[in-house]
Amino acid sequence: MSRTPDTWILTAHCPSVLGTVDAVTRFLFEQRCYVTEHHSFDDRLASRFFIRVEFRQPDGFDEQAFRAGLDERLAPFDMQLELTPPGYRAKVVIMVSKADHCLNDLLYRQRIGQLAMDVVAVVSNHPDLEPLARWHGIPYHHFPLDPNDKPAQERRVLQVIEETGAELVVLARYMQVLSPELCRKLDGWAINIHHSLLPGFKGAKPYHQAYQKGVKLVGATAHYINNDLDEGPIIAQGVEPVDHAHYPEDLIAKGRDIECLTLAKAVGYHIERRVFLNANRTVVLNA
Amino acid sequence: MSRTPDTWILTAHCPSVLGTVDAVTRFLFEQRCYVTEHHSFDDRLASRFFIRVEFRQPDGFDEQAFRAGLDERLAPFDMQLELTPPGYRAKVVIMVSKADHCLNDLLYRQRIGQLAMDVVAVVSNHPDLEPLARWHGIPYHHFPLDPNDKPAQERRVLQVIEETGAELVVLARYMQVLSPELCRKLDGWAINIHHSLLPGFKGAKPYHQAYQKGVKLVGATAHYINNDLDEGPIIAQGVEPVDHAHYPEDLIAKGRDIECLTLAKAVGYHIERRVFLNANRTVVLNA
Amino acid sequence: MSRTPDTWILTAHCPSVLGTVDAVTRFLFEQRCYVTEHHSFDDRLASRFFIRVEFRQPDGFDEQAFRAGLDERLAPFDMQLELTPPGYRAKVVIMVSKADHCLNDLLYRQRIGQLAMDVVAVVSNHPDLEPLARWHGIPYHHFPLDPNDKPAQERRVLQVIEETGAELVVLARYMQVLSPELCRKLDGWAINIHHSLLPGFKGAKPYHQAYQKGVKLVGATAHYINNDLDEGPIIAQGVEPVDHAHYPEDLIAKGRDIECLTLAKAVGYHIERRVFLNANRTVVLNA
Amino acid sequence: MSRTPDTWILTAHCPSVLGTVDAVTRFLFEQRCYVTEHHSFDDRLASRFFIRVEFRQPDGFDEQAFRAGLDERLAPFDMQLELTPPGYRAKVVIMVSKADHCLNDLLYRQRIGQLAMDVVAVVSNHPDLEPLARWHGIPYHHFPLDPNDKPAQERRVLQVIEETGAELVVLARYMQVLSPELCRKLDGWAINIHHSLLPGFKGAKPYHQAYQKGVKLVGATAHYINNDLDEGPIIAQGVEPVDHAHYPEDLIAKGRDIECLTLAKAVGYHIERRVFLNANRTVVLNA
Repeated sequence: MSRTPDTWILTAHCPSVLGTVDAVTRFLFEQRCYVTEHHSFDDRLASRFFIRVEFRQPDGFDEQAFRAGLDERLAPFDMQLELTPPGYRAKVVIMVSKADHCLNDLLYRQRIGQLAMDVVAVVSNHPDLEPLARWHGIPYHHFPLDPNDKPAQERRVLQVIEETGAELVVLARYMQVLSPELCRKLDGWAINIHHSLLPGFKGAKPYHQAYQKGVKLVGATAHYINNDLDEGPIIAQGVEPVDHAHYPEDLIAKGRDIECLTLAKAVGYHIERRVFLNANRTVVLNA
Repeated sequence: MSRTPDTWILTAHCPSVLGTVDAVTRFLFEQRCYVTEHHSFDDRLASRFFIRVEFRQPDGFDEQAFRAGLDERLAPFDMQLELTPPGYRAKVVIMVSKADHCLNDLLYRQRIGQLAMDVVAVVSNHPDLEPLARWHGIPYHHFPLDPNDKPAQERRVLQVIEETGAELVVLARYMQVLSPELCRKLDGWAINIHHSLLPGFKGAKPYHQAYQKGVKLVGATAHYINNDLDEGPIIAQGVEPVDHAHYPEDLIAKGRDIECLTLAKAVGYHIERRVFLNANRTVVLNA
Repeated sequence: MSRTPDTWILTAHCPSVLGTVDAVTRFLFEQRCYVTEHHSFDDRLASRFFIRVEFRQPDGFDEQAFRAGLDERLAPFDMQLELTPPGYRAKVVIMVSKADHCLNDLLYRQRIGQLAMDVVAVVSNHPDLEPLARWHGIPYHHFPLDPNDKPAQERRVLQVIEETGAELVVLARYMQVLSPELCRKLDGWAINIHHSLLPGFKGAKPYHQAYQKGVKLVGATAHYINNDLDEGPIIAQGVEPVDHAHYPEDLIAKGRDIECLTLAKAVGYHIERRVFLNANRTVVLNA
Repeated sequence: MSRTPDTWILTAHCPSVLGTVDAVTRFLFEQRCYVTEHHSFDDRLASRFFIRVEFRQPDGFDEQAFRAGLDERLAPFDMQLELTPPGYRAKVVIMVSKADHCLNDLLYRQRIGQLAMDVVAVVSNHPDLEPLARWHGIPYHHFPLDPNDKPAQERRVLQVIEETGAELVVLARYMQVLSPELCRKLDGWAINIHHSLLPGFKGAKPYHQAYQKGVKLVGATAHYINNDLDEGPIIAQGVEPVDHAHYPEDLIAKGRDIECLTLAKAVGYHIERRVFLNANRTVVLNA
């Protein structure tokens, strides 16, 4: 899984058709690229092809020529292609409210190098988590919600996202419903952590719902947001056993660990280019 | 967990009030019963007390006197009391349709002594699983469903349950919706295995629902039936990770193991007197 | 994961060198084979390449010509190649002693089609499990151990393995130490289930060892046998939590489920051509 | 599990004898203490009794009289008794080297109130983690190791432990072998996290050992230290699946999460008075 410092990631997806794998692998071979991992999956119900290849660049690798040649070769397949260079670090904006467990966890993983990302901004409707962000040297933007003008706050959020050049937005317990406009803009590149095993316990206070229902497992779901609340494509889910002695506050406490682990897993998958959208589902190659 | 051959189980539940634990333990001590495990839980939201004690009987133990004395002592507390003697084996009726994985698993566990039960009858709306039951020496009743007279079939089912003196009915993938009358009669002593993590994917074809939703975990739920379909109190839940490459038939295959393990666990808890109804939830002491 | 009825599996491994992936995928494309899953892994520490491809055969597929062409194309890479046709079922010999949980489980999975195998014989040093094998219509060979001539018994075992044309031998709690000669002969194609998380608790009575040590998890390990007892390459491991209240007999009971699941998983991987030997380790592609 | 602000914890253990449970529960009843959870276990192989009771104090509770009465009542049983008042917070010293994941995790859990402890000092042989401790407002003691006088460093460590009045020492990846003297002094009240599933992979570099062995699960073990390295009584173990593609550095990364969770769990059990020493094993009541 760990990669040598000269390793690229190539991902692509396109409609199912004969020749897709060969088109990719033959080009890589012709360019003397050394394939270290290759995973491809052809969804026979959706008729869609997904591929992820890690390869080491050869001596004298000419990136520009490589990209041009690859585009040309794959053009007939209508492939959505992405090429990620060695040492790439994703720019990420994290949105939070007051709960800090996911933020604390993500910043820690960035700090020790477990997530190859640069958190370029933390955005919140509350001031509470500024010290945590600051300690990690990350700009913190406090944009309070104006109940009379919610769009104004979202415009400021979006501005930060755009100005920082973020490629991923992480809703690390943001606790606010985004407007349809913002959802549309973030479609496919914003990850939310919901504190239940979706589709169970959608909506508010899922741990209280879980307590009422008397479930014996609680969980969390990391998913891409789309314009249908709590319904976006699922990337990762985690779960822990609970019992009758867990009151709602115990479920909340137990849930924190699951939320952290599940969100970190999903962010890692995204950053390492393992996740593909496949209608309202995801393909996660080599999770 | 394993018990010596002279070990009794005492369970009780009642409204929360001072003195419940002492009433039980003092009586046991006075009778020179040796407590080997004791678990009690007082639900502060439901204001209800639950207790389960394993104890070894003393020399010259007089069961009749013991029962009479215990009843008298606990009467003031309005305790629902159950006393299970050493070597007790529960009489169980299993209901099936065509899928045999849960039946095979339960009969195997009975055969090797892992579940202290006697399956006194297998009842089905199909003839398919008769050889499996016969091989284990268990009577098999094939009661086909008459679409014009469903109650007639249920009456025959109920007759078997009553005549065999079963204390537990297990719906091991029975696949038929029971009538409200039968549900009412079986309330609290019939366990169903549903092939999803309830409350997610209620109703028919849960694995197909799960595929459509693109979940990354599938599971099963063992619950007491009540008159609200797929809504009875949950006893146990199990879960396994899945990914994009699991087509519905793969989820079904994966689910079989979870269903077997989860149902066997719930049946074991019931038989060992670990489960208590607590409104629409369960308390499972020392799971 | 489930495959359409025209799906082949191609697996290969060889020393790491540029061009291996391309050699396989280009040939498949030239033959108009449609790749549905492709997983390859290049072990940078062992300098060894592993590949597993599922593909659908084209109309008018000529197996003989395909095999010949493939061999020729891959010859320069020194690839160990295996081609598994659609509908292939592995011939398997299962060896048992008296414990029947793994045998019961494997035969059940064969019966419902979850494991694409034909158990061609059950061999045992005890007569106990004959009824179970017979019920599934499988020949049972009782070869008692002669303490004065152990090799004689092993010769009879080996004769069955050879005469049935088995490609896989499964030691489903056989409980006897095989001679170095037999180990050598079965090297890489016999799977044993050991009832501990190897390398912890090697040797006899692992659950008693686990109890003494006071572990909070018990597990099982499915591994290829080699001539070093309990040291062969690990294919799969399973685990379950336990606590202080589990006496040795409880660990044994708990362990049965883990042993069944872990062994079934390993046998499935082997049959589906997912497992590759890699010195004293295994590569399991797309587990 | 969560407790109301007037809840005490009573724990005790003693040789097995008739009357232990009654002695405790009768006294609590006489004092009008309300029992909310009660768990007791009698180890029939070790002939030892363990009990943990949570109870709410009555109006006008007189702690001094209660303690005196309890001591007198339990004296005949030779009970090791511990009484933990509502709102109690354990004083804890954490020892670290350079790896900060466990320290970061423990301090986070203290900060949000999930672990009811006060970390009174962080002690290290390296200066690296001082900023992390300082940010949480916790004194950091850097005591470098003098290879010519290791005892001198340990004396300074011990002085901090004694002066802070710590009741628990946590070795959160301290990476140094303690002297037999220090082990003896900390026997039963110092928890170490070892990064393997003990007894597998004792000693140095367990993840490298695990890689060499090709295991499919890696784990961590939290245990009390005693004077036999990596052999102290186990409190908690955690585990995660891995595969062939995990190089040693990937196992190390994967292991971090398991180590954090397992150590936090063990510390929580200790602080909540759930753990009892039982020769070289532990009893963990209501884990």
